[in-house]
Amino acid sequence: MTSEVEPAVTVIGSGEMGSAVAGAFLGGGHPTTVWNRTAERADALVSRGAQRAGTVRDAVLASRLVVVSVQGNEVARDVLDAAGEALSGRVVVNLTDGPSAAAREVAEFAAARDAKYLHGQIMTIAPGIGSPDAVVFYGGAQAAYDHYRPALERLGGRSAFVSTDPGVPGLYGMAVHGTMWGLLNGFLHAAALLSSEGITTEQFLEHADPSLAALAAFLPMLGGEVDRAEHATEFGGLKHHLPSIDDLVAESRARGLDVELPAYSQALVNRALDDGHGDDSYSRLVDYFKRG
Amino acid sequence: MTSEVEPAVTVIGSGEMGSAVAGAFLGGGHPTTVWNRTAERADALVSRGAQRAGTVRDAVLASRLVVVSVQGNEVARDVLDAAGEALSGRVVVNLTDGPSAAAREVAEFAAARDAKYLHGQIMTIAPGIGSPDAVVFYGGAQAAYDHYRPALERLGGRSAFVSTDPGVPGLYGMAVHGTMWGLLNGFLHAAALLSSEGITTEQFLEHADPSLAALAAFLPMLGGEVDRAEHATEFGGLKHHLPSIDDLVAESRARGLDVELPAYSQALVNRALDDGHGDDSYSRLVDYFKRG
Repeated sequence: MTSEVEPAVTVIGSGEMGSAVAGAFLGGGHPTTVWNRTAERADALVSRGAQRAGTVRDAVLASRLVVVSVQGNEVARDVLDAAGEALSGRVVVNLTDGPSAAAREVAEFAAARDAKYLHGQIMTIAPGIGSPDAVVFYGGAQAAYDHYRPALERLGGRSAFVSTDPGVPGLYGMAVHGTMWGLLNGFLHAAALLSSEGITTEQFLEHADPSLAALAAFLPMLGGEVDRAEHATEFGGLKHHLPSIDDLVAESRARGLDVELPAYSQALVNRALDDGHGDDSYSRLVDYFKRG
Repeated sequence: MTSEVEPAVTVIGSGEMGSAVAGAFLGGGHPTTVWNRTAERADALVSRGAQRAGTVRDAVLASRLVVVSVQGNEVARDVLDAAGEALSGRVVVNLTDGPSAAAREVAEFAAARDAKYLHGQIMTIAPGIGSPDAVVFYGGAQAAYDHYRPALERLGGRSAFVSTDPGVPGLYGMAVHGTMWGLLNGFLHAAALLSSEGITTEQFLEHADPSLAALAAFLPMLGGEVDRAEHATEFGGLKHHLPSIDDLVAESRARGLDVELPAYSQALVNRALDDGHGDDSYSRLVDYFKRG
C-alpha cells in the first residue's frame, strides 16, 4: 500500500489548477485531504479517494504538508488565517500566482504562525500538472523543499528550488512569461506579414526552423553580456539591426499591417544609436528596460 | 586544380558582407572576379587570388554567375544598369537587403536585360558566411538555383529555395528577424526585472532553460492555429494570460522598470477579451497584427 509510505497532503482550493494538483497527489498514492469554499467543486476529487474537510482548520490539521492553490494571494492569506493555530508546525506550499511582494506577505504571515513556507510558481497549464517535463519554481524554506521534494515532484518532474526568497519564483515565472509574450508577439506579427503574401506559417517554418532554433542560442549569449554589463561587439551591432528593422516597419506599413510592434523596436534601437551605442550588441537595450 | 571545375563567379560589392561572400567562393576554389566602387576595398580579396575588374561591365563579362552585395536595391539596380548589354544570359544573384517590392523591381530590371534572377536573403552576420549552419533564403528562377546550388551552398550550408517570387526571401528574413526582436525584447525586459532583484541571467537560465526551450514548440502549434484560422482552445486561453500579464506590468511598475513593453501585450490581450475572444488561444492576436 503506497498510501502508507507517501506523506499525507492537504490541498486547499479545488479550482482547475488545485484539482489538477490534488489529482497528481492522489495518483501518486498520497493520502489527500481537500477543501474548497464551494465544497461541490471537490466532488470529483472525493470520488477519486480524497478526504473532504469540513473547515480549513480541519484540512490543515489533516496533513503536515499543506498546499494552497487559490485566486490571488489575498485569498490565500485569508484562507490560512481561517486555520488559526492549526498552522503551527505545518509546511505551507503556496502555488498561488501573483507579484513578488504578495508572495512575501503570505510568507511573513505563515512565519508569524510558526509554519514553514514555500512559494511555488507553476509553469504549465492544468493538464500539464504531473508531467515529467512540467516545471514548478520553488522558493522559501529550503529544508522543507528538500524534505518534500519527492512529493512536490509529483506536480512536475522539472521542479527546481531557485531561492530562499519566496518572492523569487514568481519573478522567474514572469521572466519566462515575458520572454514568451515577446516571442509570440514577434512570431504572430511575422505570421500576419507572411499571410499578407499568402504564405502559411507551415511553409515558412519548413525553411525557417533552423533560423528560429538558432535564436535560442542568443539568450545565454546576450544574457552573459547583460550580466557582465559588457555590450561591445565586433559584428551585428545595433547599427546593423536598424536597416532591417526599418525594412520591417516599411514593409508592414506598405501592406496595411500593424506597425506599432516593429515601430517599438525601431524606436528603442534609435534611442540607443542616439546615445552612441551603435557598435554595441542588442543586449545594450536592457538599459532602456531598466529605466521606467 | 579545383579552379577548373568550379564555376566562375563575379561578386559585385566588397563591403563587409560582399567580402565574406567573395572569400567563401575563393575558399571553395571558384575563379572569382570582384568589383567595388571604391576599388581598394577589394585589395584583401585580390591578395587572396581574386581578379579585380576595372568596370562593372568587365566584372559581369567575367562570369555567368554574378552575385551582388551592396547597400540597398537602388544601388544594386544602378550597378547592374552600368553593365549594359553584358547582363544578357547571366544569372544575377542579388544578396542586397530590402523590402520585397525593391527586390521585385531589381528582378524586373534583370529580366528586361535578359538575365536570370535570384534574390538571396542572408540570415547570418558576415563571419557566419561559409558556415554549414548558415541560412540563405533564395527566391526567383528555380532552374538557376538548381544549377548553381553547389556554388551557392558555399555561402551557407542551410540554403533554401523558398519561392519563385524574388520578393519572398526578404519576407522570410523579416519574419525571422521580427520573431527574433520580439524574443530578445521580451528576454531583455525579463533580464531587467531579474536584475532589479540582483538575479543574473545565468542564475535564471540555469533553472529556466527547460521552460524557455519549451517555447520553441509553441510556434508550430500557434502557427497551425493561424493557418487554419481556428483559435478555440480548452486550456490556456487569453483570459488565463491576462492575470499573469497584469502581474508583470504591476511588478515592473513597482520596481521602476519600463512598462511600455508588457503594457503593449496587456493592451492587445484586453482588446481581444473585449472582442469576446477570452477562450481563444494566444494565436488569436494575429488578427490584431493584420489590421494596421
